[in-house]
Amino acid sequence: MRETWVVGAASNRFGKMAESARESATRVAMAAIDRAGLEPKDIGYTYVSNAFGISEHQAHVGPLINGGLGIPDVPSCTIESACSSSSAGLHEAFAQVAGGFIDAALVVGAEKLSHLDTLAATSYFAIAADYPFETRNGATFPGLYATLASAYQSAFRTTPEMFGAIAVKAHANAARNPHAHFQKEISMATYLASPVIASPLRLYDCCPFSDGTAAIVVAAKEAVPRPATEPLVIRASARSGSITEMQDRPDLLGLPATRTAAAKAFRQAHLTPKDIDFLEVHDCFTIAEVMALEDLGFFPKGTAGPAAQDGVTTRDGRLPVNPSGGLKAKGHPVSATGASQVVEVFEQFNGLAAGREVPNTGTALTHNVGATGGSCSVHIFSRR
Amino acid sequence: MRETWVVGAASNRFGKMAESARESATRVAMAAIDRAGLEPKDIGYTYVSNAFGISEHQAHVGPLINGGLGIPDVPSCTIESACSSSSAGLHEAFAQVAGGFIDAALVVGAEKLSHLDTLAATSYFAIAADYPFETRNGATFPGLYATLASAYQSAFRTTPEMFGAIAVKAHANAARNPHAHFQKEISMATYLASPVIASPLRLYDCCPFSDGTAAIVVAAKEAVPRPATEPLVIRASARSGSITEMQDRPDLLGLPATRTAAAKAFRQAHLTPKDIDFLEVHDCFTIAEVMALEDLGFFPKGTAGPAAQDGVTTRDGRLPVNPSGGLKAKGHPVSATGASQVVEVFEQFNGLAAGREVPNTGTALTHNVGATGGSCSVHIFSRR
Repeated sequence: MRETWVVGAASNRFGKMAESARESATRVAMAAIDRAGLEPKDIGYTYVSNAFGISEHQAHVGPLINGGLGIPDVPSCTIESACSSSSAGLHEAFAQVAGGFIDAALVVGAEKLSHLDTLAATSYFAIAADYPFETRNGATFPGLYATLASAYQSAFRTTPEMFGAIAVKAHANAARNPHAHFQKEISMATYLASPVIASPLRLYDCCPFSDGTAAIVVAAKEAVPRPATEPLVIRASARSGSITEMQDRPDLLGLPATRTAAAKAFRQAHLTPKDIDFLEVHDCFTIAEVMALEDLGFFPKGTAGPAAQDGVTTRDGRLPVNPSGGLKAKGHPVSATGASQVVEVFEQFNGLAAGREVPNTGTALTHNVGATGGSCSVHIFSRR
Repeated sequence: MRETWVVGAASNRFGKMAESARESATRVAMAAIDRAGLEPKDIGYTYVSNAFGISEHQAHVGPLINGGLGIPDVPSCTIESACSSSSAGLHEAFAQVAGGFIDAALVVGAEKLSHLDTLAATSYFAIAADYPFETRNGATFPGLYATLASAYQSAFRTTPEMFGAIAVKAHANAARNPHAHFQKEISMATYLASPVIASPLRLYDCCPFSDGTAAIVVAAKEAVPRPATEPLVIRASARSGSITEMQDRPDLLGLPATRTAAAKAFRQAHLTPKDIDFLEVHDCFTIAEVMALEDLGFFPKGTAGPAAQDGVTTRDGRLPVNPSGGLKAKGHPVSATGASQVVEVFEQFNGLAAGREVPNTGTALTHNVGATGGSCSVHIFSRR
């Protein structure tokens, strides 16, 4: 297996895009290739994620992006794994490059939702759940994650302030991230006063609908003898699944797919949670960050909330979590989210995260969940 | 790179499915695993294709299928590359297995269209073209392929009977394939009397809308020391792209992506067209089979039509093409088609194609196109 790097990464500002997902993907992909100091012709395969492309009447978007990049002969495909789509794309890119099949690959996730009304957008999201058992019965994602939050609250001693601390941290970080959808801080008082969306989730427990695009360039070490940037060495690329339907799971106190993907990733990397300097985790709701940190092995069950309240996971804390602002405040353009987490690691490693730097950038972990954990990707990156 | 095999493959009967794509995918995947003599627990990753899943309100279908197979922890993703989706899935499965990342993978394509009316079905297909330049202006696939056929007819001496010979052959083969949508022969007179759909394409030049599901199991040679069947050694797995928009192509006399994918595949396999005993090519329209055979290098430009008329490509001809009946008569359930072509090779190699056997089954090639050639996959398989 060849040592494989992320050599370039770029994002637009999440929020609302005037352009189509296809146009945005082409433009942001070019920016990632530029940052890598490469040319489009160096790309051997393009992995696109664009789960809601049908809302723009467009599937089979890879050839259009490659056409726009001036590399129409390069093969492509579209990869969907709900909210973990572009990290699933990275998993394929890693295998193709590390396995020696190609020298470099482009992974791009783009999503446009802002042309849809809230009901339509929620309906698009909802098809990632189980249609006959969940979606058809009205279980959209705020409701499903509220169920997880309720179960968690029943099992452990929690306070609203624990979850509020996560939201406040997310907004504080996003306020310093030019890619973020929400670039403003919120106070605990604002959090506590926000309306309940799906009990016990308040408005500020929930990530927004965002448009957005993120792209990364993966290359074999040997293909980039003089990298233009500080590369991210891919130490682990692990994915896992779990029962989709929540009623069939043994417990609701975490996501089984996170646990199994994390175990694989740490085994691949020959590392443990103690070796990780900072993380980007999938915080589509604040409860998701709590579960993620526990399922990944960073905190015992029931303790990630208090840790957040104690400031352990702030940017200058012992274990910075989501310095980008996370899905919660940077935004969650479904198919772009996984790639966007890698963009944050890239910018932290390369001194491009001015104002939101974390103290140590030796090794980072990204954690990206599909739906309520039917899928999960965990990647670990180190400096050379 | 590890020697990698197709060790099992299965299909349902194409046409109309009562069950959902998800249910069908689970059932047919189990049949493919059974044929391989393996258990679901042997699968390391599931690549699903289900391009029209949204018409059944279901995305993120991999975890549902794996749940149904009793392997919920196994990771999965959905791969879309228009009509070449499941051959794109095979391309990923091959890299993951040959690269040593996993020992076995499941590739399954499932599509259900029959619950849609013709306009809705055509609209779903059409999103694989370029929306602003093609789809929005009314260019659906019969029209686009009619344009290709017109260009071809202007450049070369053609007769309706040349195309008719392909349709008659397809139906003759499909009549002997229990998986086929149309299990009846047609005569040249029937072909010639059929109405024009998009000039010059007649009804019998066009493949049908079909429901259908096909699944294949890919495994490393070393992981299957005693294969239950005659395995297909994957000698090449190549993909390519091209400009999607037909107006931007240098000519319309073939598909550039077929040419570049074929060149890669023959190079990978260290083979030439002379080494291929039979083929399954992407004949969504009869003109597509003509272009494919020429672009793949089996016939000089302008000569595949006369060759069909001369019987060269019939089941007992010098070069059997589409012994399954092809997309034209076996049917074309978009995401299932690529995997289905491999099912035919598997059944031919394993003596499971009673009544439609081809004389030589040493080496076979499959050719699967996305849309009007924005994507193309070429695979080459040999006996051990």
